[in-house]
Amino acid sequence: MARLVMKFGGTSVADLERIHNVARHVKREHDAGHEVAVVVSAMSGKTNELVNWVNEMPKVAGSNAQIYDAREYDAIVASGEQVTSGLLAIALQSMGVDARSWLGWQIPLKTNAVHGAARIEDIDGSDIIERMGRGQVAVVAGFQGIGPDNRIATLGRGGSDTSAVAIAAGVKADRCDIYTDVDGVYTTDPRLWGKTAGASKAQRLDKITFEEMLEMASLGAKVLQVRSVELAMVHGVRTFVRSSFDDPDSIDSSDGANPPGTLICDEDEIVEQQTVTGIAYAKDEAQISLRRVSDKPGIAAAVFGPLADAHVNVDMIVQNVSEDGSVTDMTFTVPSSDLEKAVSTLEASKESIGYEVVQSDPGMVKVSVVGIGMRSHAGVASTAFKALAEKGINIRAITTSEIKISILIDQDYAELAVRTLHSVYGLDKE
Amino acid sequence: MARLVMKFGGTSVADLERIHNVARHVKREHDAGHEVAVVVSAMSGKTNELVNWVNEMPKVAGSNAQIYDAREYDAIVASGEQVTSGLLAIALQSMGVDARSWLGWQIPLKTNAVHGAARIEDIDGSDIIERMGRGQVAVVAGFQGIGPDNRIATLGRGGSDTSAVAIAAGVKADRCDIYTDVDGVYTTDPRLWGKTAGASKAQRLDKITFEEMLEMASLGAKVLQVRSVELAMVHGVRTFVRSSFDDPDSIDSSDGANPPGTLICDEDEIVEQQTVTGIAYAKDEAQISLRRVSDKPGIAAAVFGPLADAHVNVDMIVQNVSEDGSVTDMTFTVPSSDLEKAVSTLEASKESIGYEVVQSDPGMVKVSVVGIGMRSHAGVASTAFKALAEKGINIRAITTSEIKISILIDQDYAELAVRTLHSVYGLDKE
Repeated sequence: MARLVMKFGGTSVADLERIHNVARHVKREHDAGHEVAVVVSAMSGKTNELVNWVNEMPKVAGSNAQIYDAREYDAIVASGEQVTSGLLAIALQSMGVDARSWLGWQIPLKTNAVHGAARIEDIDGSDIIERMGRGQVAVVAGFQGIGPDNRIATLGRGGSDTSAVAIAAGVKADRCDIYTDVDGVYTTDPRLWGKTAGASKAQRLDKITFEEMLEMASLGAKVLQVRSVELAMVHGVRTFVRSSFDDPDSIDSSDGANPPGTLICDEDEIVEQQTVTGIAYAKDEAQISLRRVSDKPGIAAAVFGPLADAHVNVDMIVQNVSEDGSVTDMTFTVPSSDLEKAVSTLEASKESIGYEVVQSDPGMVKVSVVGIGMRSHAGVASTAFKALAEKGINIRAITTSEIKISILIDQDYAELAVRTLHSVYGLDKE
Repeated sequence: MARLVMKFGGTSVADLERIHNVARHVKREHDAGHEVAVVVSAMSGKTNELVNWVNEMPKVAGSNAQIYDAREYDAIVASGEQVTSGLLAIALQSMGVDARSWLGWQIPLKTNAVHGAARIEDIDGSDIIERMGRGQVAVVAGFQGIGPDNRIATLGRGGSDTSAVAIAAGVKADRCDIYTDVDGVYTTDPRLWGKTAGASKAQRLDKITFEEMLEMASLGAKVLQVRSVELAMVHGVRTFVRSSFDDPDSIDSSDGANPPGTLICDEDEIVEQQTVTGIAYAKDEAQISLRRVSDKPGIAAAVFGPLADAHVNVDMIVQNVSEDGSVTDMTFTVPSSDLEKAVSTLEASKESIGYEVVQSDPGMVKVSVVGIGMRSHAGVASTAFKALAEKGINIRAITTSEIKISILIDQDYAELAVRTLHSVYGLDKE
């Protein structure tokens, strides 16, 4: 017997039939004797409809400002999850399972005052825990809480994952199951080997650490919102990514069963550490190089301050030690869509920064080797460099952290590079 | 300067353009210096969509019971008003008017525990009053409050009228304006004179008492929910029925202006009392007569108990004093749609009631003469009987109250009877 939080996204609750299917998943866990809380998103498409209304309303009312009150946005958009949570509670009741819906303000799930993108500050899980103990399923409207102003606050897009992890922390759950349209986290993108069945060499990971998942998620393996992984790491919430498409009746939910999926957990729980866990990549990166920048204190601030003001999201940053201490080269990446804005911003700041020329290249990809085991294994980076060199792939830039090596290369070589690295680190499926 | 509550129904907020139009009405009152709270319904059709989902969900989940938890119904259905109140607040803000939305639980508007058809128990208007005093428009989601279980409770269909009157009482408003698809309450149904423009002799009433409006509303003049009129009467809320189709810019909202509409108010406020205020009628009534019922104590209970159990809504009841104290005739009306059920119920109880024969006639209409002035004027009833007799209209049954006379006649004579009475009491437009 365990205490579980289950989370289902918008596609899983898109209509009454799918909500019934979700209820079957929940009933299965409930019937296996587990204490269950479910967190649901709005019906697929509903949030977009509501957000569009919010965006259109000022225009219709004749305002050129196109602004809206984020507190009203929250009250409007949170109604989507309110509907789904009620419908799922009714579905469960109709199947003989005791259930009730919980809105953010009823729990209460308290947030800060940043409406539209609120952060969770506190959850009182006591009422839910007490009712779960009596066999009642808690159906929680995701994405929402209540701010210090006693008004509904939403957690920002994708916030239902974050809600689920926060609820799991609040009720001290043994596991938070994220039901999604993939059946787990893979060593890399399975589509890299084409669409032929069985051709893919990517393998589903049974377990991955929070730290690795953060690197994988932020690097393009978009299974879970980054914020939810951070929260899971902070509170040690064991988070299990699994498929919502599996037939509920075919799954064994008893203690000790091992359903397909990937557990995101603390590294202590992973007995056999792999050196490298996965290969992530992010396409549509653009490289910008500033040549002969004067190498003086404050130069980084002079470069990146104006870019931040222009809302350009800068990623990899490489600055070499200058040869004579006077001028250096500086290279960094931005999303390709931001390239034009970034270059014009830099050109406008040419005098204050003090550089000779700005060069840019839009067609880049960042490939990252991720693995918590590389902390204790030497030679991981050189293995990558050697393997890429053998394929004739030119490395534009390199950055490293404790558990990842990121390499910037030409986009044309993206698939080849990922497949090569996947193979050289022994991740290929037998 | 006055404190106003304005109420707009689902048709008035059916889309963003119409919400903008509502905002123009609100801005007009706000700009005239009034303190304003607005109560809104859900967008037209939205409540039905949500209610259908609630009704369908148990079937989809495989339950034959077709029941649902009224607390979940409330959470789901109340989301409709939540969306409109937020959108109207944004529309007002976009037009430069300070505004915020209020959900039932935020005010709080406290109800009893009867989810789905809750009664209002208490309203704390202090926050809204304080903010109205600072020039902020309160946009209140109608139809909803919060129950003693800290869950959303709805007031039942048409509950937005009731919300508006309750809010008006809670904030001590000078007037509650109900914007609707008619421009007021008429002496009778204007359509009785056909569709030719100008042919109608019905007149809009400038004022009508709460008591008269209750009789008019429950007798078929469906301008306002009966519950909201009752509440207005109890709390003395001056309620003004007016058109939502009037161009907001063409209306004078200054103090002392006299926009078109009908004020429902205390009789003290009506200087010149008419003897008869209006003629109401209800079609599709069926008459049932029990012949030679044994005239003993408890006989009425024996007849109407089984009908109540069968959810048959009995209206006019006429029982004559029996000639010899042993048997009597008993006549009453039910909606035509309930006739079959009523007759079979009575036949099943024939022995316990003790009557000889049951007769019924489905095609009846109830015509009612309503007027608070008839309390102090004799001869009102005889005027009606004489006028109908002159037209050859046969009266089947009569019931009277202090301020109304109801007459049951054959449906064929409905229009003739109403037009005749409208004329004989001097209500015809010049």
